[in-house]
Amino acid sequence: MDWSGPVGAEMSWWGWGDPSRRQPLPEHAVEILRDRVGMATQLRPPVAIEDVDLRPSTLSPDARAALVAAVGDCNVCDDRRMRIQHAAGKGYLDLVRQRAGDAHQAPDAVVFPGSHAEVLAVLKLCVDLRVAVVPFGGGTSVVGGVSALRGGCLAVIALDLARLNSLTEIDDESLTAVFGAGLRGPDAEAALNANGLTLGHFPQSYEYASIGGYVATRSAGQASTGYGRIDELVVGLKCATPVGDIDLAPMPASAAGPKLAELFIGSEGTLGVITQAALRVHRLPEVKRYEGWFFRSFAEGAQALRMVEQSGASPDVARLSDEEETQLSMALAGAGGAKGAVGRRYLGLRGYSGGCLAIFGWEGTRAEVSRRRSRTAALLSQAGGLAVGRSPGEHWAKGRFAGPYLRDDLLERGVMVETLETATQWSNVMDLHVAVAGALRSALTARGTPALVMCHISHLYPTGASLYFTFIARQEIGSEQEQWQAAKMTACDAIVANGGTITHHHAIGTDHMRWMPSEVGEIGLLALRAMKLALDPTEIMNPGKLLKDA
Amino acid sequence: MDWSGPVGAEMSWWGWGDPSRRQPLPEHAVEILRDRVGMATQLRPPVAIEDVDLRPSTLSPDARAALVAAVGDCNVCDDRRMRIQHAAGKGYLDLVRQRAGDAHQAPDAVVFPGSHAEVLAVLKLCVDLRVAVVPFGGGTSVVGGVSALRGGCLAVIALDLARLNSLTEIDDESLTAVFGAGLRGPDAEAALNANGLTLGHFPQSYEYASIGGYVATRSAGQASTGYGRIDELVVGLKCATPVGDIDLAPMPASAAGPKLAELFIGSEGTLGVITQAALRVHRLPEVKRYEGWFFRSFAEGAQALRMVEQSGASPDVARLSDEEETQLSMALAGAGGAKGAVGRRYLGLRGYSGGCLAIFGWEGTRAEVSRRRSRTAALLSQAGGLAVGRSPGEHWAKGRFAGPYLRDDLLERGVMVETLETATQWSNVMDLHVAVAGALRSALTARGTPALVMCHISHLYPTGASLYFTFIARQEIGSEQEQWQAAKMTACDAIVANGGTITHHHAIGTDHMRWMPSEVGEIGLLALRAMKLALDPTEIMNPGKLLKDA
Repeated sequence: MDWSGPVGAEMSWWGWGDPSRRQPLPEHAVEILRDRVGMATQLRPPVAIEDVDLRPSTLSPDARAALVAAVGDCNVCDDRRMRIQHAAGKGYLDLVRQRAGDAHQAPDAVVFPGSHAEVLAVLKLCVDLRVAVVPFGGGTSVVGGVSALRGGCLAVIALDLARLNSLTEIDDESLTAVFGAGLRGPDAEAALNANGLTLGHFPQSYEYASIGGYVATRSAGQASTGYGRIDELVVGLKCATPVGDIDLAPMPASAAGPKLAELFIGSEGTLGVITQAALRVHRLPEVKRYEGWFFRSFAEGAQALRMVEQSGASPDVARLSDEEETQLSMALAGAGGAKGAVGRRYLGLRGYSGGCLAIFGWEGTRAEVSRRRSRTAALLSQAGGLAVGRSPGEHWAKGRFAGPYLRDDLLERGVMVETLETATQWSNVMDLHVAVAGALRSALTARGTPALVMCHISHLYPTGASLYFTFIARQEIGSEQEQWQAAKMTACDAIVANGGTITHHHAIGTDHMRWMPSEVGEIGLLALRAMKLALDPTEIMNPGKLLKDA
Repeated sequence: MDWSGPVGAEMSWWGWGDPSRRQPLPEHAVEILRDRVGMATQLRPPVAIEDVDLRPSTLSPDARAALVAAVGDCNVCDDRRMRIQHAAGKGYLDLVRQRAGDAHQAPDAVVFPGSHAEVLAVLKLCVDLRVAVVPFGGGTSVVGGVSALRGGCLAVIALDLARLNSLTEIDDESLTAVFGAGLRGPDAEAALNANGLTLGHFPQSYEYASIGGYVATRSAGQASTGYGRIDELVVGLKCATPVGDIDLAPMPASAAGPKLAELFIGSEGTLGVITQAALRVHRLPEVKRYEGWFFRSFAEGAQALRMVEQSGASPDVARLSDEEETQLSMALAGAGGAKGAVGRRYLGLRGYSGGCLAIFGWEGTRAEVSRRRSRTAALLSQAGGLAVGRSPGEHWAKGRFAGPYLRDDLLERGVMVETLETATQWSNVMDLHVAVAGALRSALTARGTPALVMCHISHLYPTGASLYFTFIARQEIGSEQEQWQAAKMTACDAIVANGGTITHHHAIGTDHMRWMPSEVGEIGLLALRAMKLALDPTEIMNPGKLLKDA
């Protein structure tokens, strides 16, 4: 858990993760996609870092010196690579811009505070210096959450929390632990696992995302149906704001007024910097069992998921692909996938041809997993499900963090791949699914780039579920941003018009700000803005995100 | 569910509930208490309503006329009985004052709006008229939450929500329902039960408390370990504020910024009036099984509760009395109680003499209850528990809403009985128990009125539990308020000094306001006050509660 210098180098500045770990799309998958959506006629690699367009830093020498005095010389970085690496998150637009060499939204410097006190000191300095502050955890935002916008300030810094990377306390009796905000998912897990514990929080960004980022964006992970969303895990937190500290001691429950922690969970760096979080943890599971099931249709599968969830018999991981996603994933999968495991012929014989694949996972002691799995399986069978063995589950588990790497490959081939997600009441899941998928198809067909549009349910609640859409289309070369904008706008309008939330776990950032009024109403925004101005009166905190200007 | 005129008449103005339903303390219980804490030498009945000291209404004729124009003549009431009935909640101090004929905190009028639109209209009028508004649901607050304080206003009205008493919508697929804020617990249950559903929310105040009150005070019920606290049941809400509406559509989960609903849950009428809540509901249980268990000590029992809760095997109702509470309840109980069922001799033979009684309850289908009960029972036995049959559980269930009636009887005999509650992490439960019980004992011994101090755990969370204290002492005639104040202050100081929350489910009101800074910090208060001022700029909403003046 020792920290050895400013990090970020491991993450590619133009794409996801460590390029050396990238696994190219298999040739048959390339063929399928070329056939279904088309591809660029030649590869489109990112520009060289030397060719990236980066404006000169506007941080004054005095301001820089003041920051150096606060955190130390080696913790204020304004070299080209560091600024470019902190220019953007990992959304589709971010990558399109970075690959094309556009780093106009780069910060003027990157500052690495080493403690809560240093964070507070930097914020106070930045108020005086009129410098905007963009809190930066893993940098994995897909909604523009870490773009270095300066708002009305003279300059902007990225405040990289990588040095706040300790697991400072474990309360084994209460099953809680206190984490530094900059601790990355795998490091947090390693430290917990060594104590027989797990956080159980595995978003697709897990390999790079940070604890503070989870909390600041109201994250949900792939096993959150079982382990709970991050907001269900937060029992206390510490936050530095421009006017002082928020320090909420761990508490299992309280009736002492509005739940203040819920204001900071999902605050996306606009109120202050979450520096520490006390989270509920779980005993490390002895076994993890993942397996595949088939349903005759998305509707049948969704009813089955609702039934197990409302019976209190839900698996820890529960994902149901719609017909399109099932078909494409079976076509793309190699021998380890659902296709290899079960085969079209078998499904056809059993009446599940053209149906939907679900992945279920149970984690815990061997006895618990066996007991819980039996109960769920009985209900799933009753609801029309067909168990197709462990192979599809294990295939999913193996590739669960690989999606963002594939996106880089597709971008190189001139293919847009993007995801968006929502949630709604069970009674509205099917209608919302149809409305959003339809909106995406129409928008992209209208631009002459017909899309593959797929969806899965991946988070179950007693009253509803999430819907996660993936769409793939040939890029409009030269109009990539307009193309994306058209699809995104149409889909988001369809989401709010059809009773969905604008985001289930990606957060607001810049991309969803436009729909915040439909989400919380004008009076709700008024209340949130008033609170923002109380904590950040000069509006230095992550300007241009979450809330329109206060 | 028809509403037939302004209600409130059924609730005694000087005590709890319907006096005709009161069951006097059995003679042997009177003897025990006389022996243990002492009693007044003669009965102390409440004064006659004619003798209650009530100041003249300060509502101007113009203001009254404007309110009549907004809600209709028969829905603005300022007769003596109605004002006195809305003067206070049902806390110890409230009853001491009301019984003594002190209704100085009565509102100038009671207004009964018939719709959300009328609530909004009344608020806008009250802004113009400089009239304070105290939202009034069941009037069961035990922390001063409905005292008709006027703050800086010219007059004060109680806004009784009794007419907003409909169950407007049931979504049987999503298991949610939309309730008017004024709907009382039993009426909500009756309407749900007719549809095969239940809210599963049963605070001790259930027979009078309202849905809006549950939400506004962040309530927890006796079965909340199983069914969830009210904040876990809220999926959407509607609130009228002096500057306009908050209207949050039902949503299972979202990452769209801070969770706005969490600002209104627990807002205690200081931000606006919750007029409607969309809540998660449950299938009506086929069976309810309640039973008694014994542990050799409070510590052993607490460890057992922690273990079952952290194993995901908790009952829906889980209560563990400490040694003092067990001893007194066995002494007071008639033949149906734990004493009758099991007897000291049996416990002594098994080594549980002087131990602690727990009540566990499981609700659901017959098969589920049987399955879940077996699993919990196996764990409880492992942890040292001794099952003592259903009788103690059924005895508890029968008397679960009777506590407030007994208080009236004790007050008549010159005996103070008061409760307070907190919650903390599991690792701190035993220390907090000792600290708070000790503080109460010292404070009351120091005043020459040694107390019985008892406690139980009644709400389990994976990371901690609640502690609910009851203390009984002879009243200091003529200094009842000072006596209470001394005990309350000492106990609350002990709670916050020892890592507890100032309230687990009674809320803040006036009584706990002093400890809000320790709960949320000065910067947290600043944020909450800023939001309050944005929604209620002229501070008409429930002045003097929850937040110190903004």
